[in-house]
Amino acid sequence: MKRPLEPSAEGRGRIVGITDGVFAIALTLIVLEIRVPSHEAVHSEGELLGAILALAPRFLTYALSFLTLTIFWFGQQAQHGLIAKSDRRLATLNLCFLAFIALLPFSTDLLADFLEFRIAVLVYWLNLLMLGATLFASWWYADRNDMIAEDVDAETRRTVYNRIVKAQALWAVGAALCLITPLLSIGFILLVQLIYAAAPRASLLRKLIG
Amino acid sequence: MKRPLEPSAEGRGRIVGITDGVFAIALTLIVLEIRVPSHEAVHSEGELLGAILALAPRFLTYALSFLTLTIFWFGQQAQHGLIAKSDRRLATLNLCFLAFIALLPFSTDLLADFLEFRIAVLVYWLNLLMLGATLFASWWYADRNDMIAEDVDAETRRTVYNRIVKAQALWAVGAALCLITPLLSIGFILLVQLIYAAAPRASLLRKLIG
Amino acid sequence: MKRPLEPSAEGRGRIVGITDGVFAIALTLIVLEIRVPSHEAVHSEGELLGAILALAPRFLTYALSFLTLTIFWFGQQAQHGLIAKSDRRLATLNLCFLAFIALLPFSTDLLADFLEFRIAVLVYWLNLLMLGATLFASWWYADRNDMIAEDVDAETRRTVYNRIVKAQALWAVGAALCLITPLLSIGFILLVQLIYAAAPRASLLRKLIG
Amino acid sequence: MKRPLEPSAEGRGRIVGITDGVFAIALTLIVLEIRVPSHEAVHSEGELLGAILALAPRFLTYALSFLTLTIFWFGQQAQHGLIAKSDRRLATLNLCFLAFIALLPFSTDLLADFLEFRIAVLVYWLNLLMLGATLFASWWYADRNDMIAEDVDAETRRTVYNRIVKAQALWAVGAALCLITPLLSIGFILLVQLIYAAAPRASLLRKLIG
Repeated sequence: MKRPLEPSAEGRGRIVGITDGVFAIALTLIVLEIRVPSHEAVHSEGELLGAILALAPRFLTYALSFLTLTIFWFGQQAQHGLIAKSDRRLATLNLCFLAFIALLPFSTDLLADFLEFRIAVLVYWLNLLMLGATLFASWWYADRNDMIAEDVDAETRRTVYNRIVKAQALWAVGAALCLITPLLSIGFILLVQLIYAAAPRASLLRKLIG
Repeated sequence: MKRPLEPSAEGRGRIVGITDGVFAIALTLIVLEIRVPSHEAVHSEGELLGAILALAPRFLTYALSFLTLTIFWFGQQAQHGLIAKSDRRLATLNLCFLAFIALLPFSTDLLADFLEFRIAVLVYWLNLLMLGATLFASWWYADRNDMIAEDVDAETRRTVYNRIVKAQALWAVGAALCLITPLLSIGFILLVQLIYAAAPRASLLRKLIG
Repeated sequence: MKRPLEPSAEGRGRIVGITDGVFAIALTLIVLEIRVPSHEAVHSEGELLGAILALAPRFLTYALSFLTLTIFWFGQQAQHGLIAKSDRRLATLNLCFLAFIALLPFSTDLLADFLEFRIAVLVYWLNLLMLGATLFASWWYADRNDMIAEDVDAETRRTVYNRIVKAQALWAVGAALCLITPLLSIGFILLVQLIYAAAPRASLLRKLIG
Repeated sequence: MKRPLEPSAEGRGRIVGITDGVFAIALTLIVLEIRVPSHEAVHSEGELLGAILALAPRFLTYALSFLTLTIFWFGQQAQHGLIAKSDRRLATLNLCFLAFIALLPFSTDLLADFLEFRIAVLVYWLNLLMLGATLFASWWYADRNDMIAEDVDAETRRTVYNRIVKAQALWAVGAALCLITPLLSIGFILLVQLIYAAAPRASLLRKLIG
């Protein structure tokens, strides 16, 4: 007999559908805050160029958040590909993850507006931390409840945990750097994201990011 | 001979596509109203922290609406998984359901802005009521027109009705609490959503939420 | 040998993906203009109720545009289901159709803001006309270039043309009514959309809407 | 043994999902800046007509960007259809492409607001250039790493490169025309996009656009 919300291929497909939807929107929303300069304030080519260059912090934080979204999109996808079945709670954990993805445009704007404030860096870091925490919880729940595909060996299981923890450790170092100056924090986190996004083959970096 | 809009697997897939799209957007839009504090009003770390903490009601209503979206996403999915075929009217009922999902960011903002007003709680509750009503109507229509999968037994059919009614009864109690004070209403509804989202195994709560 | 952009099942799937995406966004964007009343202007439950009731024209045009989106979503789906293959031009016609779907939130807002102006009704009608024109052109192009599925008979082909023309005739009558008064126009068009959305079985209405 | 993020059919499907999502949102966002005239400034049918006609530059740039999105949607699709497998780096290149698609509404608004400024044309052109560059890089990476489907011959591989370069050459000419006057630039680019979107069969134009 069929029962409501039994684990099914359709259920997996819907998680994918809503996840890619939220990522696509978040990717586009973080751009929305890059606002076109007001026409009243611009009277020459030079002033327009100046007004566009003044948007530099927004482009910087856009690049940062674009990389962050990229990394977590792969993170979610890597996990999802290794999980064979899902129940309502695992789906709920995935939605919690999406709730923090949806908050990323807010954290990004805050950072762009208050680049020189430590609190803005901490809020951004907290967002990264919650994203990692929900991914970790999903994997842990799937691991405990025998939802991981059978052909995933113990080493791969550990690798997934390790990657999340390593990335969080790096971001925590980045966040701590705001004790010196917030811009150093942002630069460090941006560098970490660049390394992750480029997925380098060089063995030292490979080891570092797991 | 092929006729336009005959029930088909593609038709089912499109309902899923537009549903997950609307949920993904609603999930992201409710965040859009959490606005970054104005730079002019903030001159120190302390003031920025204060400005962020002042956003607390928005985070509260975001959490509430995130949970609500989660619950109805599962509700729609549970029904959809049990329905074998669909016609244009059933699809229209599903779109009506989505119309009220699309209104949820409005109801949420209203609630966040007017936490202490009964009317705001009632509008939010009305939105929940219409979501339940359209889900109920869909199931009733599918039941009457032999569109439910054959291997769904009579008990499961009843369970789907019962769950909708039980949830609505709990929210009605929550809404009625605004006669005492609106914040009590919101707290109660938030608690109900938390229980639903957590999908507890404890038998008493299980019985309560069906 | 494989060539770029050959007609394929994947190509069909992508048309569906982008179409459902645009509809989901349009459905949600028309709500965005229903703005929460300003907190400064509201000091009592009565004033809040009044402010919400003052949003009535927006809810009216939301309902209208929701119904319009529903009708065209089914229209696009009906055609798409009967077309066996697609080339780049047919896909471009479909994207043109989507461009006018994307304009619907604009036409809707204009109508809500200028309910008593004929120009607003005419712009809305022009949007409906262009939606019908692009659907008609798609079907005509598919018909001419042998892209319709083989098991679609001549009568069904004609029916698709007829339905588009009949709907446009009804909306043209509706638009013409704005010579008397714009509100009559809107009421008539709203009625037409309600009949289409309800997809009545009564034979007289059936005949009328084809 | 299964490893995280191994090339898979699911991975390909997710690239498609997020790509169509971003395109659907970009298509809709470029409309958002076409704002309904303020009610206070309009007191007669004539004034409303005037206010709508004053939106002409926005409709022009909307048409331009709609065509641009169409062209790159097909460009991405053409490539994706010829690529048999994908790794994380190729997916990252695809996301970089999407990051510039997401920037298109910004470039479009800038152009609409500053039609008569060369800088606005150059920013728009830079956006087109980056879109071409990321597409070129994706194809080059897939080509170098044996990810292109086996039944794609050498000529088709070259054709994909050539098309990208030809389109960029035409846009570069268009951008250079802003040395004479920005409107000439926009007109030329608009003409190029129209030709691409119409995908003409006439042999001269065919040869020109490859």
